[in-house]
Amino acid sequence: MSDVISDAVRPIVWSGDHLKLLDQRELPARETWVACRSAADVATAIHGMAVRGAPAIGIAAAYGLALDAMAGRDYDAAEQVLAASRPTAVNLRWALDRMRRLANRSAAALRDEAQAIHREDLAQNLRMGELGAALLPERGARILTHCNTGALATGGHGTALGVIRTAWQQGRIAQVYNTETRPWLQGARLTAWELMREGIPTRLIADGAAAHLMSREKIDWVIVGADRIAANGDTANKIGTYALAIAARHHGAKFMVVAPTSTFDPACPDGTCIPIEERLATELTQYQDRVWAPAGVGTWNPVFDVTPAALIDVIVSERGVSGPGEAVRGMSD
Amino acid sequence: MSDVISDAVRPIVWSGDHLKLLDQRELPARETWVACRSAADVATAIHGMAVRGAPAIGIAAAYGLALDAMAGRDYDAAEQVLAASRPTAVNLRWALDRMRRLANRSAAALRDEAQAIHREDLAQNLRMGELGAALLPERGARILTHCNTGALATGGHGTALGVIRTAWQQGRIAQVYNTETRPWLQGARLTAWELMREGIPTRLIADGAAAHLMSREKIDWVIVGADRIAANGDTANKIGTYALAIAARHHGAKFMVVAPTSTFDPACPDGTCIPIEERLATELTQYQDRVWAPAGVGTWNPVFDVTPAALIDVIVSERGVSGPGEAVRGMSD
Repeated sequence: MSDVISDAVRPIVWSGDHLKLLDQRELPARETWVACRSAADVATAIHGMAVRGAPAIGIAAAYGLALDAMAGRDYDAAEQVLAASRPTAVNLRWALDRMRRLANRSAAALRDEAQAIHREDLAQNLRMGELGAALLPERGARILTHCNTGALATGGHGTALGVIRTAWQQGRIAQVYNTETRPWLQGARLTAWELMREGIPTRLIADGAAAHLMSREKIDWVIVGADRIAANGDTANKIGTYALAIAARHHGAKFMVVAPTSTFDPACPDGTCIPIEERLATELTQYQDRVWAPAGVGTWNPVFDVTPAALIDVIVSERGVSGPGEAVRGMSD
Repeated sequence: MSDVISDAVRPIVWSGDHLKLLDQRELPARETWVACRSAADVATAIHGMAVRGAPAIGIAAAYGLALDAMAGRDYDAAEQVLAASRPTAVNLRWALDRMRRLANRSAAALRDEAQAIHREDLAQNLRMGELGAALLPERGARILTHCNTGALATGGHGTALGVIRTAWQQGRIAQVYNTETRPWLQGARLTAWELMREGIPTRLIADGAAAHLMSREKIDWVIVGADRIAANGDTANKIGTYALAIAARHHGAKFMVVAPTSTFDPACPDGTCIPIEERLATELTQYQDRVWAPAGVGTWNPVFDVTPAALIDVIVSERGVSGPGEAVRGMSD
C-alpha cells in the first residue's frame, strides 16, 4: 500500500466535541465549514449536500450518532433522522448498522468507532488506488471520470479519483477528462478542483460530449464510483453513469467501478430494488439566483441511475478486483 | 399540408429596411430584439448566438446579403463575413450559394430571394411535420427531443419540434421529454418555453438522464434536428445527440432526424469531413456572471457531434421519409 497521501483537503474533521464539514456547496469559490453538534445537524448537512459522496455520507452519519450519544440524546431518534437524510447510498445504512452494535456502549466508544470508520475508509481508498491503477496502461493512459469521487467524497484520497491519483503518482496517466456532471456540477466544481490541486491534467467536458470524445480518441478506461452495488453487480451511481457505460461498451472502452465493500448491498438482488433519489426541480432550472428555465416547467430530476452488471468490466474494492457480481458474492463469505 | 400554424413566435422579422432578430440569449426571461442593418451585424448576431438553429442561421444570412446590397456595400465582403460566422451548419453555406446566383441583380431581387428562402423554410417545416408525425403511434406517443429545433431555430414551426407540434395537433402525443442541452441550455431555455406555450406536456431532464429514462419507460422515438447531413447519412447535430442515438439503439427506441434538404451536404462523403465548432470555455465554467468551475481549468467544448448513419432509423426532409443516405442520394437527382 502506498504511504503517499497526496490529497491535502479533507472534508470531514472531528474536533473533539463537534464535527466540521467542508461545505461542498460553496466550493471551489469559498472554503467554508459547517459545524455540526448533533445528529440532526449532520442529517441536515447530508440532505442539503454540504457533505456528499457515498463514503463521506457514511462517515459523517457515524459521527452524528456519536454527537448525540455525547449529548445524552436518544439513540433511536438520532439513527432515524440520519437514515432518512438520503435514500440511494447504502454506505449510510452500513455505517448506521455498524454503529448500532455499540448502541448500548459509552459515548466514547461510539466516537472511537466513528473515527475507526473514518480511518479505515482512507486506508481502503489507498488500497483500491493501488489495485485499480495496476489495471491501467503503464504509460499514456487516457481516462474519463464522472461526478466527484475524490478526497471530498470520502475519508481521503477517493475511490475512482483515488485510482486516478495513484495512477498519476505511478506515471501512468497522460490525460483525464472529467464530466461537469449535471445537475449539481460535482465534476466542474469539485473534481476539476481536486485534479488541478494535484497537477493532474484534466479537461472539463459537458456530459453529452463524452460519447463524442470516445469517437474521436481512444479512452482506455471510464472510472466511476458507486452509491450502491446490488448482489448481481448492478451499480447505482450519479445520473449519467449509465449513459457513459453504454457509450463505453459501444466504443470498446473499459468500464471500472471503484467502491469499498460498505457500498455493496447483498440484500438487494439487483438494480431494480435500489431506490433512486429525485431532487428539486431548481437543480435543473437555475444556478444560484440565476434562473434559465421558464417558470413552472415540468421536470424529472433523478440524481442516480443504475448501470447493469453486464456493462461493467471490473469492480475494485479494498478486497480485490473482480467481475461484477463476483465481488459482491465474495463479500458475503 | 396542414394550414394550422400554431407557433406564435417568429425569431426573424424583416422590417422593410432592416432585420429584427429575437435575441435568443435573453429568452425566456426577456423578449428583446436585435436590429441588424448590415451583413456584419447579422454575422455578429450569428456568431454571438442571438440567432441560432441551422435553418434560422441560413435565413438570417440571406437577409444579411440583401441588407448590404441595399446599402451599396461590396457583395463579396458581405458573403465572406457571413460565411465565417459559424462553421458546422451547412444551411448557412447553402443560403449564401443560393443568393450568389443573384449577386449581379438588384438589391430588391436579393431581398425578394431572402424572403423566399424564409417563406419556403416555413412551408418545408409544415410538410416535414406531417411526414414525421405520420411515423408516430396514433395515440400515447412518448418522445424525447434534444436542443431546440422549433419556431425559434427556423422560419417557423420547426424541424424536429415541428414534427412534435404536428403530432400533438393530431392527438398522438402523451408525453415529451426535453433535455436541457448543455452547455448552452437550448432545451431548458427555448424548447421548454416553446412547448409550454403550445400546452404540450414536457418534462425537462439533464442530458445525462436520457439513458436512464429509456431504461425506466418506453420512449417511442428520439427526434432531433441536424446542422449538416453528409452524403452517407452521417449527421452533425448538437453535442449530446450521438450519445442519445447510442442509448436509443441500446433500448430499441427509434431515432428520427428531421431537416430540410438545405441541411444536406452531398459534397461531404461522410461525417469525418464535417467541421465541428468548438466554443468558449466559459460556456462550461459559468452561467452569466455566476462562475462554478475553478479558474484556469482546462476544457474541451465541441458544440456538435456526428451521429453515424447506422444509428439513424429515418431522415425526414421536405422531400419525404427515407433511410439515411437514401435521402441524400435522392436529393442530388
